[in-house]
Amino acid sequence: MSHDTLSTREAGAPSATAASSASAVSPTAGRVRPLGTSAVSLGAGLLQQWQGRNRERTIPHTIAQLRAAGNLDNLRTVATGGEAPYRGRYPFLDTDVFKTLEGLAYELARDDASAESREFFEEAVALLQGAQADDGYLNSFFQHPGSQKQPWSDLAWGHELYNLGHLIQAAVAATRQLGDDRLLDVATRFADLAVQRFGPHGDPEVCGHPEVEMALVELYRLTGIADYLTLAGLFVVRRGHGSVKLSVFPAEYFQDSAPLTELPSVTGHAVRMGYLAAGAADVAIETGDDALLRALERLWDDMAATKLYITGGLGSRHSDEAIGDRYELPSERSYSETCAAIAVMQWAWRMFLATEKAHYLDTFETVLYNAYAAGLSVDGCAFFYDNPLQRRPDHQQRTGAEPDGELLRRAWFVCPCCPPNIIRWTSELQDHIAATAGDTLYIAQHATATVQSDRLSLSMSTAYPWDGTVTIDVTAAASAGPTELALRVPAWCHRAEVTVNGSRLDAAPRDGWLRLDREWSVGDTVLLVLAMPVRAHGSHPHVDATRGSLALARGPLVYCAEQQDNKGDLDDVVVTAADAARATLAEARLTPEGTESVILTVPAGIAPPPAPVLYPELGSASADAPGTTATVTATASAPEHSSVTLVPYYLWGNREPGAMRVWLRQR
Amino acid sequence: MSHDTLSTREAGAPSATAASSASAVSPTAGRVRPLGTSAVSLGAGLLQQWQGRNRERTIPHTIAQLRAAGNLDNLRTVATGGEAPYRGRYPFLDTDVFKTLEGLAYELARDDASAESREFFEEAVALLQGAQADDGYLNSFFQHPGSQKQPWSDLAWGHELYNLGHLIQAAVAATRQLGDDRLLDVATRFADLAVQRFGPHGDPEVCGHPEVEMALVELYRLTGIADYLTLAGLFVVRRGHGSVKLSVFPAEYFQDSAPLTELPSVTGHAVRMGYLAAGAADVAIETGDDALLRALERLWDDMAATKLYITGGLGSRHSDEAIGDRYELPSERSYSETCAAIAVMQWAWRMFLATEKAHYLDTFETVLYNAYAAGLSVDGCAFFYDNPLQRRPDHQQRTGAEPDGELLRRAWFVCPCCPPNIIRWTSELQDHIAATAGDTLYIAQHATATVQSDRLSLSMSTAYPWDGTVTIDVTAAASAGPTELALRVPAWCHRAEVTVNGSRLDAAPRDGWLRLDREWSVGDTVLLVLAMPVRAHGSHPHVDATRGSLALARGPLVYCAEQQDNKGDLDDVVVTAADAARATLAEARLTPEGTESVILTVPAGIAPPPAPVLYPELGSASADAPGTTATVTATASAPEHSSVTLVPYYLWGNREPGAMRVWLRQR
Repeated sequence: MSHDTLSTREAGAPSATAASSASAVSPTAGRVRPLGTSAVSLGAGLLQQWQGRNRERTIPHTIAQLRAAGNLDNLRTVATGGEAPYRGRYPFLDTDVFKTLEGLAYELARDDASAESREFFEEAVALLQGAQADDGYLNSFFQHPGSQKQPWSDLAWGHELYNLGHLIQAAVAATRQLGDDRLLDVATRFADLAVQRFGPHGDPEVCGHPEVEMALVELYRLTGIADYLTLAGLFVVRRGHGSVKLSVFPAEYFQDSAPLTELPSVTGHAVRMGYLAAGAADVAIETGDDALLRALERLWDDMAATKLYITGGLGSRHSDEAIGDRYELPSERSYSETCAAIAVMQWAWRMFLATEKAHYLDTFETVLYNAYAAGLSVDGCAFFYDNPLQRRPDHQQRTGAEPDGELLRRAWFVCPCCPPNIIRWTSELQDHIAATAGDTLYIAQHATATVQSDRLSLSMSTAYPWDGTVTIDVTAAASAGPTELALRVPAWCHRAEVTVNGSRLDAAPRDGWLRLDREWSVGDTVLLVLAMPVRAHGSHPHVDATRGSLALARGPLVYCAEQQDNKGDLDDVVVTAADAARATLAEARLTPEGTESVILTVPAGIAPPPAPVLYPELGSASADAPGTTATVTATASAPEHSSVTLVPYYLWGNREPGAMRVWLRQR
Repeated sequence: MSHDTLSTREAGAPSATAASSASAVSPTAGRVRPLGTSAVSLGAGLLQQWQGRNRERTIPHTIAQLRAAGNLDNLRTVATGGEAPYRGRYPFLDTDVFKTLEGLAYELARDDASAESREFFEEAVALLQGAQADDGYLNSFFQHPGSQKQPWSDLAWGHELYNLGHLIQAAVAATRQLGDDRLLDVATRFADLAVQRFGPHGDPEVCGHPEVEMALVELYRLTGIADYLTLAGLFVVRRGHGSVKLSVFPAEYFQDSAPLTELPSVTGHAVRMGYLAAGAADVAIETGDDALLRALERLWDDMAATKLYITGGLGSRHSDEAIGDRYELPSERSYSETCAAIAVMQWAWRMFLATEKAHYLDTFETVLYNAYAAGLSVDGCAFFYDNPLQRRPDHQQRTGAEPDGELLRRAWFVCPCCPPNIIRWTSELQDHIAATAGDTLYIAQHATATVQSDRLSLSMSTAYPWDGTVTIDVTAAASAGPTELALRVPAWCHRAEVTVNGSRLDAAPRDGWLRLDREWSVGDTVLLVLAMPVRAHGSHPHVDATRGSLALARGPLVYCAEQQDNKGDLDDVVVTAADAARATLAEARLTPEGTESVILTVPAGIAPPPAPVLYPELGSASADAPGTTATVTATASAPEHSSVTLVPYYLWGNREPGAMRVWLRQR
């Protein structure tokens, strides 16, 4: 194949100086274009802390786990023609290497990566080059000696195209961030095989696990080769016609029960759904497919209105790791897989790029600081696979098998999809901060960062999410004409004040954007103050799981109560919406490894321990003798006055095992 | 082995005239002994209707399904040394034949069984005789040509001892009900192999699925051979020490995380838990193991107070088909497997026999008329595997794979454990009506029936559960001394009136029993009137799933609303506890095949359609500026006055697919 269209084609070893690296998602069409990776650098603040922890803790931990679990050995056996049996249970274990490589591409480009990171990168790239079959095929599970299955014999569960997707994403990152196209050569050879096999003239099939769609679009964006976009589009439109060969799980699990454009609501396996929707958004952006985009907007709106947890988590069921019915949002059985959180953010980002709408970024932010962030321990070396919103006092650790609702995070999993997904996503955070469209520079997420667009360079400083004040200094400005600076005002914020060079502007956000359109000069300072009161949220009356309960939040952060900070059974804590108004804030470092956070103390009652009756009779009358008065027993005793201490949800489960509640009983 | 201790040892073809047949559970110790099968006959009423439907519809349907699904063919292949591959996915498909045979033993003894039932019985018995290996082993999955697994190589998932258990229960039923010991010869040969292999001098292992424990005890009761009781006891005490080899599922799933006597709460796979507890109760009864019995009472009390659905269903999770944490009782995801309902009744019955306590029978009754009865369609030919308490309006039928929360019942399952379990249990209903202890005759369940004990014969007549009046005529009475007639007064009944020969007695129930101790004469008539008002139940404040909701019940029946009977979204129906007092009753036949039932109409409000906001903000204040008053938005509009029509929960899903709710929003 030809790579003529590719600008960064200098082969060779990693370089830390790829100057104008594109961001993870780099559309060639759509309303908004993200700034390239090198145009945004995170500065002191929570996101930068996360990125540092990722580099210093999570990546070394994951590399060690991948080595110990055999993920590299599997590739080595294939590359060297060895005889060792495949290690691990699943056919997608190569992807954990790919996701790690994707994150490493960013970290190596930042020039402060460790020697072991460089060594892992080099070793893995060499193994992948060596393991790839002559026809381009690459999957160590199927290629392994003694494999019971033939390549492509089980598209429903084989994950081969899912593997290809993650390989492409690693390769694209390495090319963009490092100018290193060794992985790209491997990925394009595999992608070309996929085009040949499943393209317009190939088998009209789809992978059981969507992922390759967004990867193929990105490969198209990088290479300009239309075949990849075409194949991505085919995978999107083919799905939903019952072509996935089912066993055990239903068609909904694979999003194969109806085409995306006809699907009534997001459904099935949550990660599959999110990846598919994100890939479809990429296709819609590049092809200008308005009908597809409208379907995605409809599915998103429905999801946001009926199926997302208040933490931004997606997936209400452990069974099938599935999205539930509308309003089925049980706290203790929230699955909210960490990978699904990433998928929702990927989808959200693409929808913003396609539409310019701020509400996608609001949800992105909710997911980022809650459902996603909870997936990783404070020390960066332990993970939640699922992210419940409640842990009951008697919750028992499962003994001796795979994790499922564990008390605390775990170092690794038999299915380790989440840890390396966190790695790559954290490495890419700066790619999701700012974007441009024409003369507008959008600040999508508030963080301490430097931002360089063609027209305007900024230095932003904030203690977000702990504080709502953002200071923005203009460090460079185009001389020709005005530039619109569009600052996102999250929907949770009811009072946003902005001053420019000390002068208060009478600007109100429209559709979530506060737009400052003027000729900027170096030295200009914008001060954005987002009021960040503690809020009490109820839930839609059709949500049975949280009826009569309140969740407290401040800014983008959802809060929770952990037993260790509180007296009395958390199940007996009762609060009122007005209690939120009387919250007191305090800075606290919950664990030695952790950073300062804001905790809340809220007036609350402690209800007396309830009578041990599961279904108390509240009223009855002789229906045999109409007219008899019902006996309604009053059961409520006055609660004891007390208070409840709340910590950011994402920090839960970092200290002692114990009960936890996001939703507190409403008095 | 010797069968000298066996009284009914005449071999031969089925006989319909086994006069003094023992009931399904026939303890030799314990507080209470059930009356034998032939001593209780059901008369006109709901239970008799169920038994008739079982004989006329469910058994023929199941026989046809078993033939079509290959369960008999699997045995035939082994018996004839054939080469046909094993049909079906699971290694326990022989048990569906065994459970059917167990039920057929009862039906053939009642002399009105069909020719096809007799034919199936004869054919299956012959195949089992032919398929049994020389050493007594019998499991067509493992014996099948081409089986990938060796016998006993996978105790965790092989289900071989589970198979033995159901074989024994069929054999015991055939011997007791028909005097036919052909199956008993097969079962004892297999049981003797198990004794040899896993007895005191064998491998200290347990089956992954408890069931054989209660069967072995019953085999001991029938044969008097102590080895079987010893082995059952070993299986009980061995479990809980981590001996089950785990894969995917945790030790809790197999009740192998802690010994029963130390287990804090019922846990893991619900059916396994119930069968284990029932078997342990049998062991405790026969061995007089008080510590074990106390542990079972503790586990039961905890379950009844924290883990049972209001329908009596057990099992809150689809994932692992598991019991959840305490108070984890989500309506829409209630698993409440039909087999678990049977297991809970089996456990309850044995606890009653061990302790004489009526509350076990109250739960038995709740399960019988709700969680259990819901498992079967009105026409007797379709089944729910799981029994949710709510179906949301947008609940989607799963497309193309195994059932999991289907809209309506299904004719059969890939894992068809429930249908033949319903068959045997329905055939044995009369075994759970009456029992004796010394001079006391206990009426455990109210039904139209004739009951013959040594001291007293009764003819009971009632429209129960539709009406609480029970008329009891004495048809025979011992001349020597008084007999105590103990009538159960369910805990739901707050006003029980009893008259004897027209004279009102001033008797009050104690611990659930109304005891009438007198010298009875033929012609005496007892009239028991159990007041049966409509009740509204709330739930314990720690049950998040049903907070702010009410469930309506009348007598033993829990009611539910189905969309087809009601205007407006069921999720918007709001009721008060006092509304229950104003319920009106009506007789209705919901489907042409069905029988008359009582439906309720209750005053209710229809709340206006709620705003489409998932997590409305109810109050907030600037915590940055303490003292600011919270803004609490009133969201409740006055509901429209209306009413809601409720049908017995067990009858739901027999007409149109649609929404259903047991728990209604409390106004």
